[in-house]
Amino acid sequence: MDATAEDTLRRALSEKQSAIDAQGSAVRALKDSKADQSQIDAAVDALNALKLDKSSIEKKLQAAVTGGSPSDGSLGREAFRHAVGNTLERRLFYIPSFKIYRGVAGLYDYGPPGCSVKSNVLSFWRQHFVLEENMLEVDCPCVTPEAVLKASGHVDKFTDLMVKDDYGNCYRADHLLKDFCNEKLQKDLTITAEKSKELKHVLAMLDDFSSEQLGAKIKEYGITAPDTKNPLSDPYPFNLMFQTSIGPSGLIRGYMRPETAQGIFVNFKDLYYYNGNKLPFAAAQIGQAFRNEISPRQGLLRVREFTLAEIEHFVDPEDKSHPKYPEVENLEFLMFPREEQMSGQSAKVIRLGDAVSKGIVNNETLGYFIGRVYLFLTRLGIDKERLRFRQHLANEMAHYAADCWDAEIECSYGWIECVGIADRSAYDLRAHTENSKVALVASEKFAEPKEVEKLVITPVKKELGLAFKADQRNIVEALEAMKEKEAIEMKSSLESKGEVEFFVCTLGKTMTIKKNMVSISKEKRKEHQRVFTPSVIEPSFGIGRIIYCLFEHCFYTRPSKAGDEQLNVFRFPPLVAPIKCTVFPLVQNKKYEEVATAISRSLTAAKISHKIDVTGTSIGKRYARTDELGVPFAITVDSTTSVTVRERDSKDQIRVNVEELAAVMRLVTEGQSTWADVWSRFPHHSAGSTEESDDRC
Amino acid sequence: MDATAEDTLRRALSEKQSAIDAQGSAVRALKDSKADQSQIDAAVDALNALKLDKSSIEKKLQAAVTGGSPSDGSLGREAFRHAVGNTLERRLFYIPSFKIYRGVAGLYDYGPPGCSVKSNVLSFWRQHFVLEENMLEVDCPCVTPEAVLKASGHVDKFTDLMVKDDYGNCYRADHLLKDFCNEKLQKDLTITAEKSKELKHVLAMLDDFSSEQLGAKIKEYGITAPDTKNPLSDPYPFNLMFQTSIGPSGLIRGYMRPETAQGIFVNFKDLYYYNGNKLPFAAAQIGQAFRNEISPRQGLLRVREFTLAEIEHFVDPEDKSHPKYPEVENLEFLMFPREEQMSGQSAKVIRLGDAVSKGIVNNETLGYFIGRVYLFLTRLGIDKERLRFRQHLANEMAHYAADCWDAEIECSYGWIECVGIADRSAYDLRAHTENSKVALVASEKFAEPKEVEKLVITPVKKELGLAFKADQRNIVEALEAMKEKEAIEMKSSLESKGEVEFFVCTLGKTMTIKKNMVSISKEKRKEHQRVFTPSVIEPSFGIGRIIYCLFEHCFYTRPSKAGDEQLNVFRFPPLVAPIKCTVFPLVQNKKYEEVATAISRSLTAAKISHKIDVTGTSIGKRYARTDELGVPFAITVDSTTSVTVRERDSKDQIRVNVEELAAVMRLVTEGQSTWADVWSRFPHHSAGSTEESDDRC
Repeated sequence: MDATAEDTLRRALSEKQSAIDAQGSAVRALKDSKADQSQIDAAVDALNALKLDKSSIEKKLQAAVTGGSPSDGSLGREAFRHAVGNTLERRLFYIPSFKIYRGVAGLYDYGPPGCSVKSNVLSFWRQHFVLEENMLEVDCPCVTPEAVLKASGHVDKFTDLMVKDDYGNCYRADHLLKDFCNEKLQKDLTITAEKSKELKHVLAMLDDFSSEQLGAKIKEYGITAPDTKNPLSDPYPFNLMFQTSIGPSGLIRGYMRPETAQGIFVNFKDLYYYNGNKLPFAAAQIGQAFRNEISPRQGLLRVREFTLAEIEHFVDPEDKSHPKYPEVENLEFLMFPREEQMSGQSAKVIRLGDAVSKGIVNNETLGYFIGRVYLFLTRLGIDKERLRFRQHLANEMAHYAADCWDAEIECSYGWIECVGIADRSAYDLRAHTENSKVALVASEKFAEPKEVEKLVITPVKKELGLAFKADQRNIVEALEAMKEKEAIEMKSSLESKGEVEFFVCTLGKTMTIKKNMVSISKEKRKEHQRVFTPSVIEPSFGIGRIIYCLFEHCFYTRPSKAGDEQLNVFRFPPLVAPIKCTVFPLVQNKKYEEVATAISRSLTAAKISHKIDVTGTSIGKRYARTDELGVPFAITVDSTTSVTVRERDSKDQIRVNVEELAAVMRLVTEGQSTWADVWSRFPHHSAGSTEESDDRC
Repeated sequence: MDATAEDTLRRALSEKQSAIDAQGSAVRALKDSKADQSQIDAAVDALNALKLDKSSIEKKLQAAVTGGSPSDGSLGREAFRHAVGNTLERRLFYIPSFKIYRGVAGLYDYGPPGCSVKSNVLSFWRQHFVLEENMLEVDCPCVTPEAVLKASGHVDKFTDLMVKDDYGNCYRADHLLKDFCNEKLQKDLTITAEKSKELKHVLAMLDDFSSEQLGAKIKEYGITAPDTKNPLSDPYPFNLMFQTSIGPSGLIRGYMRPETAQGIFVNFKDLYYYNGNKLPFAAAQIGQAFRNEISPRQGLLRVREFTLAEIEHFVDPEDKSHPKYPEVENLEFLMFPREEQMSGQSAKVIRLGDAVSKGIVNNETLGYFIGRVYLFLTRLGIDKERLRFRQHLANEMAHYAADCWDAEIECSYGWIECVGIADRSAYDLRAHTENSKVALVASEKFAEPKEVEKLVITPVKKELGLAFKADQRNIVEALEAMKEKEAIEMKSSLESKGEVEFFVCTLGKTMTIKKNMVSISKEKRKEHQRVFTPSVIEPSFGIGRIIYCLFEHCFYTRPSKAGDEQLNVFRFPPLVAPIKCTVFPLVQNKKYEEVATAISRSLTAAKISHKIDVTGTSIGKRYARTDELGVPFAITVDSTTSVTVRERDSKDQIRVNVEELAAVMRLVTEGQSTWADVWSRFPHHSAGSTEESDDRC
């Protein structure tokens, strides 16, 4: 929404309200003074006109803050979401888990068509990434011992801030504040432009708020528990991992993994060896991950158990080029770099190669994966107009990350992060090296041994100990960690002055280092190899989120032939469609049913998923049913030698001989041919002879 | 092992020992009496001869109890297991999970080739079962609320008996007893035939032992903790589910599911509706399941997290025929019916159709799935000589089950249960109906309403209460539960004698029921449909176990060309092979490498997983490497226009043009052609020109 327009409207609204108040007083005064009726009537008319004006401004403001257009007759976001959700649940794309036991928030089953879409998405992911890039796929358990997640930081930092009311009801602190601000902004039209600005600022800063800041705002706004209206506790961190205990003793603490990546990192050494001790290489994993949300919302987008598909591409930090980068550099799509976000601009179409060469995207390998993710998502059927790659702002990014981009897909919930593509530098391998004491490193053997000059810093622990006692350890570490430039400066200062002031950041103070406390020298050495911790570039896919967005992007409605109702259609590409075709005998008779069974056998042999519908329902209704499942092709048996094939979206039909059918269906469902190809090769069939004759059977 | 042969050997050994003892005494007596040296020497020689005899009997006995043959030079079971395991771990088929943190018992990762085998096995499972049988696949979460697993019985009964020592070390009680018996039988050759018989009886009864019986045996044999030799507690049940808590309150108890089946049962109503309210239909699910083993052993066979693939086939209990049964009834394979097990016979080849028609297998649908499982396993590459279907004995089977067969595969650990195929009757749906209060039933609409005569039993609660006070409720229930025949008899007795003796089994006593206490009458009613709880037939696949057995069945060694070492080979069928082919440039030059890259691109486009090996290693070594991964075809680039393709097991080679290659590879890897087909179509290539010339490059 446009902030200035909104401000103008809020000002106009506030002025109009003043005018109404004034005119109201005038009317009351006239009545009190028993003025002439015609005079009173005129004043009331004027008041009503003002009220009408106000209501019109309110409508505009409402539209401005909720993002819809007031004159637009199309489905609103919520109504659209309701229509999709309704179809998805009625056709069992998904089912709230354990429904007969009243379910559990944040857990969903995929029913038959949903499960099939999911398995198609994962197959394509394997083909597009694992097979085409020769990745090393692994499969690790969900149950994970504490040590691993302690090293990764999840035990300490995988938390959300929670508040509780007196009855023990729990809420996410930021959600309560967010809801309060949004509700005020959207529903309370009387707030001033200044207040609106403040609330918007809170919304923008929400992710950066500390526990104390969140608590203070909740107090300031008088926010109470939504269910009970009771006062709330101060916010405190709640760890989002499902905890369990491994083995019978109860002493080995474990968690259900919050991501699949750690399973790859801890195997780095073996995988590097498997790859012939060569970099770069990528490992991949598909599997369940868990997140014990405080209060799950947003339906299928924020759940407590989900499927992740993650890639860890290990690369030499000194060479992040990618041999296949030229294959993607000419792709153009919506990108939303940090700069544009900070300056209030919107996402724009950028050529990937330009983003990389201008340094907007940190390196070629990161760029390559952004391009591959773009191809993956759009081939699944994600609308490229509603897909953007948004760069993380500095405050969103972990301190160690070199760069990070999210593939965000727009749906009725707004822009949703579905894939994260991050250059995490050497952070993860270093963390596990430190904690496990197993060196997760790579090496580059030099063709010839290299003579290198190395700066050797040797703190004299004894002298340091005598001078600084308990601070000795921190000072030794700080000296050893000096960058080359700093050390050379220290060396020359020590030689000229005998001592030097040295700031030890872990102690937060400056110490005086004397000449006898450290020796700094340059040594020449022959080195045969370079040993280093590889950088990792991590594309991480939330499969459930991608699938939900796909559902929304593929959904549309069209009027029935009779025009009395809207029919629902999912325009899934054949690649992801849950069932590739349905087979209908036109009328219920043995001859046609035998042909249908023979066709089914040939489709099974060709590995094409399909469904026979031999109910006596009209063909029109059977088409509608099949459209609602997103089945791309419907085969109607109306003779024993040839059949019609109807394409879902165009509703065009061709006639194909029974013997040829399985081969043709394989071509169009596996993507070797398009519908346009077969449309030009086969005789057309007039829709009138089947689709319109709903009453035939 | 043959029990009588073993008994004879034990007797012979015991007699020989007596003879040795006697002769030993004789030697001592001779020495004490300072007898003639020649006399002493003769007695010592006789003693040594007896000892030699004893040692030979010991060797035979050892072989008899461990199953090996003493003269047999082949690898023993343990050595074979070690060789397979070694190759599997070295080539990263699997990796002990979290190895760098010293791992966790019972958790394993699949490394790249293992992961690929697994994903091929699951794809084939989907093709063979879900697609070919039009099953409804679902995908439910692992995190499961307590109510569901309380209803299924897992909260109360999914336990193993555990013992603890003073330090809190935990052991499975039956494992300790089993180990004790096996060790005694195998290593202590001095035990008598009677003791041997007793220990074997204990082993046979182990699964039936109550907690008290197990505890008594552990005391009787003086079994202590293996690690500490400390005394052990009495056995007590330990629940094997990983427990967790859902949501932030800590009040909702949850478990990681121990099987995937419950997710299907709780969705029965929706799935039945999805299937057009028609029976039979099958639902299927592939997913992780969890079992917090007390002390995991047997490597990949008994783990704490594993992948299950389960089918729940819902069927009318009055009609368990299957339309596709004729497709499997002529299959013949090893079956091990209950009768044969009880009478000490072994498994024998039976025609499936005979087993069903003779009533050995309970019904057609159960038989159909046994047949389909046989086809599934043998197509994967399981050796049909080491696959048997064993029927559960009465004491192994749940009381509600109608029949149950395990597909057992023989490997170095013995016969391992890999698939269970059970007719569970209506148990699961009834349990969830009772607990959730949602009726999980099916109905059959009659074409015409049927007039049925129904017996109506109406206990007169008031009279029963007056007569029997607190027993009233049990008597009412017993009266209502009477079978038709019993009720009719009661009715006529009451009419003739005015009262009747009636045994109430829940009270354990006989009551006198008078005429005024119950009314029994026949009523005619019109019924429009029959409502019933469907039976479920459940084939349940332990994917990890199947894969491990497949590894063993596919593994063999053959001498290298030089004859100086044994090379390892996995003879995976192309269907499951982790990589379908490798591409080798014969020598390192740019021309051949370009051809190899072009071939790689064409294989990728044809969706054939492959690997390029451009190392300068000899072709022989590269073949050996690829054989060890079970890659069926190796493509060697030795010209720019045509290449050789070598088949792994025969080592035969053909020559194929580069342009044709991808199409040919697709045919042989997807199973449309066999190697024999292409062998007859393409020019043969003499192995000598590549395989033998190890020194060429």
